Amino acid sequence: MAYTYEYARPALTVDCVIFGYEASASSLKVLLIRRKLPPFAGDWSLPGGFVQIEESVEAAAIRELQEETGVADVFLEQLYTFGAVDRDPRDRVVSVAYYALVSLQRHPLQAATDAQWFELSDLPELGFDHTEILGYAVERLRRKIRYEPIGFELLPETFTLSQLQRLYEQILEREIDKRNFRKKLLKMDLLIDTGRKETGVAHRAAQLYQFDVQKYQLLKQNGISFEVV
Amino acid sequence: MAYTYEYARPALTVDCVIFGYEASASSLKVLLIRRKLPPFAGDWSLPGGFVQIEESVEAAAIRELQEETGVADVFLEQLYTFGAVDRDPRDRVVSVAYYALVSLQRHPLQAATDAQWFELSDLPELGFDHTEILGYAVERLRRKIRYEPIGFELLPETFTLSQLQRLYEQILEREIDKRNFRKKLLKMDLLIDTGRKETGVAHRAAQLYQFDVQKYQLLKQNGISFEVV
Repeated sequence: MAYTYEYARPALTVDCVIFGYEASASSLKVLLIRRKLPPFAGDWSLPGGFVQIEESVEAAAIRELQEETGVADVFLEQLYTFGAVDRDPRDRVVSVAYYALVSLQRHPLQAATDAQWFELSDLPELGFDHTEILGYAVERLRRKIRYEPIGFELLPETFTLSQLQRLYEQILEREIDKRNFRKKLLKMDLLIDTGRKETGVAHRAAQLYQFDVQKYQLLKQNGISFEVV
Repeated sequence: MAYTYEYARPALTVDCVIFGYEASASSLKVLLIRRKLPPFAGDWSLPGGFVQIEESVEAAAIRELQEETGVADVFLEQLYTFGAVDRDPRDRVVSVAYYALVSLQRHPLQAATDAQWFELSDLPELGFDHTEILGYAVERLRRKIRYEPIGFELLPETFTLSQLQRLYEQILEREIDKRNFRKKLLKMDLLIDTGRKETGVAHRAAQLYQFDVQKYQLLKQNGISFEVV
């Protein structure tokens, strides 16, 4: 089968930056694929693929995410479209990048055979312009976690205040003042105390909380932002 | 000339939401094009066009902006990529949307013959999904003006504090408390007092200010945000 057009068309792909978080180890990871074929054969790259002609760009991103991780019902947002002329040595390829947030407690790891989770702090060199795309995703995550509660997408259903703080510290790559963080957090009144405590820990068991999604939606309509740091 | 591919490819376009601001009239406008050909012939739409195979997506947006307004050296930022399957009745077309901010004092209007500035508060119906794209751009502008000083792109080189406040009021579509606004603004110490006053006004002439770009860049590196409302 061949498709003919009057004017040359770039190929259109999606690339996905899939962040995974393991709260028990305070470990922020990214899912990468080992490339088998040239260009960049043997190198690691972001999972991605062509946008099919009968699917929306967003559907293509959801499909890629599902193929690589086995999950589809997680946070997924469009990041940016990368359209430099020479970003792929084979052909003119424009890529719409997405980023996903996966709690590795809630969605146990089902990475495809060619895929592997890497610590964000210890990444290999990536093919194409994927280092730039990944950097862009990390920036978005850092900015967004300061005014929207997307961090909760990365945590288990219930979590301790220390776990929440460590997630922020991992993403922002700096220490956060515990007292100030808790004060701002509790003032927003968006956490539900489950009445339960964590189990199986050597230290004194801490209180477990849940995020109050409904209350947040209500506050958001009135223009409140989620500013804890 | 014809171009043949193994797999079907969507056409790729850029669409530009060009905001123009006239400080003297506190008037926020959008540049629209009257369509001559079907679909949506006679309707208004955002300026846009196909991404050429030898130009980057960003270069295509800059070219469109220049063709429609005669200016190129203004604020232009990628907004979002719209990729629904049926958004163009003729063909599968994916569009990368951009938005531009133009001060109509600094860049006198040179709209192309088929183009016209519309008040943001009084827009006609738009073809395609352009009402959605425009709504997305307005949302971005509203959010961004709260944490980055992009409003200065829309004002003349020198401006009064009242002009700055009215710009915020136009964009946010609500009244702002004058005392609180000025207090936050002056506390950030990002305005330069030019020592001059506005001329040709019936009321008492107000002080003219400039935005301190260098100081802002310096503060930004340290993670300060521009929060005046």
